[in-house]
Amino acid sequence: MAIDLTKIDYFTEEGSVDTVNSRTSADTDARMAEVWSALVKHLHAFAKEVDLKQGEWEAGIDFLTRTGQMCDENRQEFILLSDVAGLSMLTDAINNRELVGATESTVLGPFHVAGAPELPMGSNISLDGKGDSCLFDGRVVDRDGNPIEGARLDVWCDNADGYYDVQQPDIQPKWNNRGIFTTGADGKYSFKGAKPVSYPIPYDGPVGQLLKKLGRHPNRPAHMHYILSAPGYKTLCTHTFVDDDVYLKSDAVFGVKASLVAHFEKTPDGETDWHSPFDFVMVPA
Amino acid sequence: MAIDLTKIDYFTEEGSVDTVNSRTSADTDARMAEVWSALVKHLHAFAKEVDLKQGEWEAGIDFLTRTGQMCDENRQEFILLSDVAGLSMLTDAINNRELVGATESTVLGPFHVAGAPELPMGSNISLDGKGDSCLFDGRVVDRDGNPIEGARLDVWCDNADGYYDVQQPDIQPKWNNRGIFTTGADGKYSFKGAKPVSYPIPYDGPVGQLLKKLGRHPNRPAHMHYILSAPGYKTLCTHTFVDDDVYLKSDAVFGVKASLVAHFEKTPDGETDWHSPFDFVMVPA
Repeated sequence: MAIDLTKIDYFTEEGSVDTVNSRTSADTDARMAEVWSALVKHLHAFAKEVDLKQGEWEAGIDFLTRTGQMCDENRQEFILLSDVAGLSMLTDAINNRELVGATESTVLGPFHVAGAPELPMGSNISLDGKGDSCLFDGRVVDRDGNPIEGARLDVWCDNADGYYDVQQPDIQPKWNNRGIFTTGADGKYSFKGAKPVSYPIPYDGPVGQLLKKLGRHPNRPAHMHYILSAPGYKTLCTHTFVDDDVYLKSDAVFGVKASLVAHFEKTPDGETDWHSPFDFVMVPA
Repeated sequence: MAIDLTKIDYFTEEGSVDTVNSRTSADTDARMAEVWSALVKHLHAFAKEVDLKQGEWEAGIDFLTRTGQMCDENRQEFILLSDVAGLSMLTDAINNRELVGATESTVLGPFHVAGAPELPMGSNISLDGKGDSCLFDGRVVDRDGNPIEGARLDVWCDNADGYYDVQQPDIQPKWNNRGIFTTGADGKYSFKGAKPVSYPIPYDGPVGQLLKKLGRHPNRPAHMHYILSAPGYKTLCTHTFVDDDVYLKSDAVFGVKASLVAHFEKTPDGETDWHSPFDFVMVPA
């Protein structure tokens, strides 16, 4: 027998983390090694804390497999899982600590589409004309209140039935409730669109089953999505939320922040049914 | 405005775990709530400890998605991921603490197939005749050394090329290197087969890419798989390992235990090239 069996670092319950992490090669990228070793440590701590049963492990493997297999070009079930576990908002928080005195960020969500039409200020992005109409306007400024010229606002929201255009490619016009607007020297923006409505995240898959087991509803409060970018400024991914929405208290993905709840006022004599003014404050890159 | 915005439990980095777990409904199954809340706690602790970057979160979502999409009826990439992270062996350890004074357990692996042929003792399970031949024999006993009658041994291993039959359905005979044997009153078992060889776990997918980034090889030391079941006894899932294998020290899935390394002796005058005696000790259910 050529192998000295006494010299082997056998796996044990107590030493499990060290045994796994000692295998990582010394020349592994330092950040990769750091993230992997922390992941192994916390994963094992989880299994030990709950005394994970064999059948529960099997259920977990099955759940993750089904989550992966639910994904296609129009559906990202792992982002939904991250969202409902609060991991998306936690990652957002960790990566945006410097937004002090500026507009806060929130989750991107799975429905952004790059390449929306570039439109002149004042355009109407609601192509199906459904629901209440609303004027969205305000200014994009720096932390001193100075207007930012050349700020791009990439905006999108659901329609009055609670679906994004990409969820209903055969029903909604392409680019319904989407557009890109660029500020001039005054930093002002304005566009018209549907007043967003609350909607459930897709819940006909594994994440929906999980929410049901936890007794949680799948709804998000009504919101308009924004990605703001400007030369020299940190790109800002955020929403404005409709201030009378019943789900503000219980957003399924935890995206609500007090500073992002926008005022929506009825405008009986206006060109639109509603008006929602909101100023965005960006920080240097 | 009907909503009192000051009453909302907004998501913060500091309070992230409590915010998520407070959403779980009070009438959720107690074990479900316990496992989910621990998972959220450890997942958030991981993200906070490594200061998870947005791009790393995206890479993680992509990795998990590809892992799910690699799975089909012949490939279980999430089990491989669990295996290389040591989670499979940890779950095995947690669920088999009572095997004191008995044969130890180890991972099932992804290649077991139910319904293998029931064979008489002494049969040869190597249908392709490749590689070195070996006689496997011994006894199945209780902790007092009494023979166990009616113990079923469900055995399987790779062929001399390092592949299980299900990995090469067009090349290997069906049920190559698989069989089920049932002990008589003497508790004895014996069968002939190929001497197992070391082999890499499938590494042409996301888990293989992960191992490469960690500087880890994908190999498992040579082993024979066993599931032993008998009326009144706890079912035992285990391997015997070939004692001269270079990968005993570095099994990619951490499955090796000292007590499972079996003696393989050359038998120049025997009916087979090798002989590996091993006794199994089972505990009451």
